[in-house]
Amino acid sequence: MVLTYSFRDPSLAALALTHRSAGKPNNERMEFLGDALLGAIVAEMLYETHPKATEGEMSRLRAQLVNGQALASMARELELGEQLKLGSGELKSGGFRRDSILADAFEALVAAVYLDGGFDACRQTVRTLFADRVAALPRSSKDAKTRLQEWLQAQGWPLPQYDLVATEGEEHARTFEVSCMIGEPVSVTASGRGSSRRLAEQDAAELVLTRLAVAQEGH
Amino acid sequence: MVLTYSFRDPSLAALALTHRSAGKPNNERMEFLGDALLGAIVAEMLYETHPKATEGEMSRLRAQLVNGQALASMARELELGEQLKLGSGELKSGGFRRDSILADAFEALVAAVYLDGGFDACRQTVRTLFADRVAALPRSSKDAKTRLQEWLQAQGWPLPQYDLVATEGEEHARTFEVSCMIGEPVSVTASGRGSSRRLAEQDAAELVLTRLAVAQEGH
Repeated sequence: MVLTYSFRDPSLAALALTHRSAGKPNNERMEFLGDALLGAIVAEMLYETHPKATEGEMSRLRAQLVNGQALASMARELELGEQLKLGSGELKSGGFRRDSILADAFEALVAAVYLDGGFDACRQTVRTLFADRVAALPRSSKDAKTRLQEWLQAQGWPLPQYDLVATEGEEHARTFEVSCMIGEPVSVTASGRGSSRRLAEQDAAELVLTRLAVAQEGH
Repeated sequence: MVLTYSFRDPSLAALALTHRSAGKPNNERMEFLGDALLGAIVAEMLYETHPKATEGEMSRLRAQLVNGQALASMARELELGEQLKLGSGELKSGGFRRDSILADAFEALVAAVYLDGGFDACRQTVRTLFADRVAALPRSSKDAKTRLQEWLQAQGWPLPQYDLVATEGEEHARTFEVSCMIGEPVSVTASGRGSSRRLAEQDAAELVLTRLAVAQEGH
């Protein structure tokens, strides 16, 4: 894997590869910007490639692609470790091999491309870097109830309970509201809506999956 | 406040204002994309307007600007509530006034501008919408030790303890490493670096602030 971008201002690339242990200025501020850009560009890729995925599914897929470990491994493929500027302490302790330092440099480099060449250049660079990984994602995902069930079983947690809460509207345009509840060891309830009971259950399961994902990220 | 963008394809704007209670298609997928774009565009504004802010400070400033309540209030200024398409249940229960529904519509609208007009149009629209709010942010922020102390006092928590952990390097280019520890009721320790003990303490305090902010978001 190579970076398909040539910097007009190489000092931006150098700054992106300067870790805070080397003093100031360093890549910390760029990392903030790069993280946000990466999130948006990968979000758009998933929006395009997964037209039927829900918000929750896209959010989980993005977390698979954009996390410290994944970005560190991309940084290694780009051989960023060898180019990092580190303070003497981090140098001695092998900081150029640390996931967090590599992932931060990768994010900062994305910001550097944006600052040097603008959004289109940054978007094209990120899309090229992530193309294979996005293409390798599962396409037709399982339905939300199945995914929730499999996830709960993998944790060894009890299965969810679905209850019809309400039906609304005329006979020919009825809306069903169903709650999905898991009680232990974490209590999460969500209610979903749909034009059939089955669709409302899927909707509720999807919401519970999203909340479980959010709760996990918090840990 | 008005939206300074005219849609070429008004159906994208209409979709952005269609809540899931009205059935499918709705604005949920667009909200995912809009949230990410908003994060990146506001990150860039802060990167430009706060050249001395650390990553942690920019992250906190962005959370002040981009959160459910703030976006809902912007949605109200744009009178999005009146234009929302809601299912009958949400209509009856006044869903057009709910913060979460309004904030989601605002985010979806940002994505709709992107899909309709491209990144530059979206960026310009968001920058115009946020200009006053960004300008109103505190400029010269207090140093990290002061902010950490004030934050801990506001919670009624004990003050942090700073300890010199190590010094590295030659006399004329020494690096100090200082740990900052809070013990109760939450235990957080971080170590910071700097060319003086004072700078290393600031750095450590900043890291503790960032971790406290992350822990808070998880709740």
